[in-house]
Amino acid sequence: MRDVAVVGVGVNKWGELWELSLRDIFVDAALKAMGDAGVDKIEALYVGSMSPGLFVGQEHLASLLADYLGQCPIPAMRVEAACASGGMAMRAGWMDVALGLHDVVMVGGVEKMLDVDGGAATYALATAADQEWECYNGATFPGLYAMMANAYQAKYKIPFETFRDQLAHVAVKNHANGLNNPHAQYHMKLSLDDVKKATMVADPLRLYDCSPITDGAAAMIVCPVELAKTKFKNHPIVTVIGTGAATDTIALHDRADMTWIKSTEVAAQQAYKMAGVGANDINVTEVHDCFTIAEICVTEALGYFPAGKGGEAAMAGATAMGGAKPVNTSGGLKSKGHPVGATGIAQIIELALQLRGEAGPRQVNKARLGLAQNMGGSGGSSVVHILKAL
Amino acid sequence: MRDVAVVGVGVNKWGELWELSLRDIFVDAALKAMGDAGVDKIEALYVGSMSPGLFVGQEHLASLLADYLGQCPIPAMRVEAACASGGMAMRAGWMDVALGLHDVVMVGGVEKMLDVDGGAATYALATAADQEWECYNGATFPGLYAMMANAYQAKYKIPFETFRDQLAHVAVKNHANGLNNPHAQYHMKLSLDDVKKATMVADPLRLYDCSPITDGAAAMIVCPVELAKTKFKNHPIVTVIGTGAATDTIALHDRADMTWIKSTEVAAQQAYKMAGVGANDINVTEVHDCFTIAEICVTEALGYFPAGKGGEAAMAGATAMGGAKPVNTSGGLKSKGHPVGATGIAQIIELALQLRGEAGPRQVNKARLGLAQNMGGSGGSSVVHILKAL
Repeated sequence: MRDVAVVGVGVNKWGELWELSLRDIFVDAALKAMGDAGVDKIEALYVGSMSPGLFVGQEHLASLLADYLGQCPIPAMRVEAACASGGMAMRAGWMDVALGLHDVVMVGGVEKMLDVDGGAATYALATAADQEWECYNGATFPGLYAMMANAYQAKYKIPFETFRDQLAHVAVKNHANGLNNPHAQYHMKLSLDDVKKATMVADPLRLYDCSPITDGAAAMIVCPVELAKTKFKNHPIVTVIGTGAATDTIALHDRADMTWIKSTEVAAQQAYKMAGVGANDINVTEVHDCFTIAEICVTEALGYFPAGKGGEAAMAGATAMGGAKPVNTSGGLKSKGHPVGATGIAQIIELALQLRGEAGPRQVNKARLGLAQNMGGSGGSSVVHILKAL
Repeated sequence: MRDVAVVGVGVNKWGELWELSLRDIFVDAALKAMGDAGVDKIEALYVGSMSPGLFVGQEHLASLLADYLGQCPIPAMRVEAACASGGMAMRAGWMDVALGLHDVVMVGGVEKMLDVDGGAATYALATAADQEWECYNGATFPGLYAMMANAYQAKYKIPFETFRDQLAHVAVKNHANGLNNPHAQYHMKLSLDDVKKATMVADPLRLYDCSPITDGAAAMIVCPVELAKTKFKNHPIVTVIGTGAATDTIALHDRADMTWIKSTEVAAQQAYKMAGVGANDINVTEVHDCFTIAEICVTEALGYFPAGKGGEAAMAGATAMGGAKPVNTSGGLKSKGHPVGATGIAQIIELALQLRGEAGPRQVNKARLGLAQNMGGSGGSSVVHILKAL
């Protein structure tokens, strides 16, 4: 098994990209990644996207993107695991390079979500839930995560006002971090009151507890570490030392405990074991904060905080810049945006920048080990990667 | 790199499965594969499906299927490459086992296409073409393959009646083979006249030149060859000795030559090289006959016949049972049906049965080496696998 390095990264400005189509957005990010690595040719492409079929009427995405990137006849594969599609694409590209199938491989992700109206976007996203049992009864993701939030508050007997503050702290922190990320969709400082008084979406989740609908792409160049040492000298080398992936019941109501993201726990344990490190060793973390409650549950499942204590930790500043465990220095899905297929790739790009020491005003001091957690649906899929500065 | 074996196969009866949902169909095939191998637990799942989002409003497919198969928390990944999704899923599962990530892995494919009306199914399939340049102008796949057929006839200056006979021979042969496949959607013997006088779909392609719309699934268990030798003794061992994948322009009009499936040529050359064999060595072949013209072009791109001679070869019986190069002994997409995500897996299952000597009345005598060619769109993606009886 060959060790794998990340040697090029590219993200475009995320947001409402009305003037660009899906292929334009991806090619933009892909060319940035190729420029960052200093290559004009790739040998294979793995691309994560959740539903280009429902969002823009385009399947066969990997062929399209290899074509528009001028890279045919390279092999190209699209990978889908709902909102964890990007992380899964990374895993597929990692397998390819680790196996020795190809040397210079692109892994990327893209979603163009704003070409349909809000109802159609909510429908498309809801296809990550169980169509026959959840969607059929009207459930969409704000509602499912609201149920997780209510179950969490009840299970751990947290006074409602305290719990509401815990959720708000996650949003305030991530938007504060996002102010320092030029690629983020939303650059706006939020106060606790802004979050707590925002429009209700699904009780207790309000507008700023929810990640937005976003057009965006992200891409990376990966290669064997030995090749990185000799041929890719633009940046410090960052290596992938652990990967883990796991599933849980797709339907939230089938879980033994709605407040515990079991798939993240299992994926993280696999990744820690492969990397030979533990939760305490991680310096910088990107998690899948599709909703504020998700960040709280995930930081517990990763082993950062005890069960029921993730909200307290957020409120105490443990996950903020300068805290013991900085989480979502990029701004997270909350501020950076959530073009679902691209999210998992952008998380790993943030780690690469942090571990290179190129994260600018959001740089975590002495970051040596980073972890990215990407999640599909209400936790039906999780993918975890651990990266290290060589 | 570990050698990979196929140790369990499962297909259900394909057709119009009104009483079953997507998950039912897949679980049925998956349990058959597990039963065939003699396992009740798998370690990872790779599933190919083209557009469960457009066909049944369900993405996040791999999580759903792992769940309904009772296999959580195993990692599960959906792979998409339009109609080559099944072959691509095989490639992903092969990478996993070859790398040593897991030992007992399921690769499968599924599509439930009949829950939408014919127009919506044609729309969903057309998303495998270039949405902005082909679909926008009204092109669907019968039209695109009809253009390939007309270009082929013109390029090789074949008299129309002769060419029409060549196409018809492919349909007649595949439907004759399908009579011996209990899982096939259509069991009907066709005459040349039946094919040549059928309803026109897109000139020169008539009804029986086109593969049907189908509900179906297929699944296999793959594992390292060394493990197969010690633990899987239900059947003779079949090994995967070559894999190749390639892309071409997604849009047909961007090709240098509309009659030459370049992606298949490139993928086949990769697979031949890895396997250390050539076109002449292959005893039994499954190709992607989504339309009769496709089988003719593909047998040329695989190197079986010279360019422009594939139709003549079909007419001369070279690709029939008992011919020098039997192709689509399963009945092909034409007779067996074409649930797009499942097709690439079912092709490999047919090879496994042939190489085990378990193909019953359609058994090819002394079959030792088999090749499966799976294709997306009008050739924007191709995947080729070569299997061998150990």
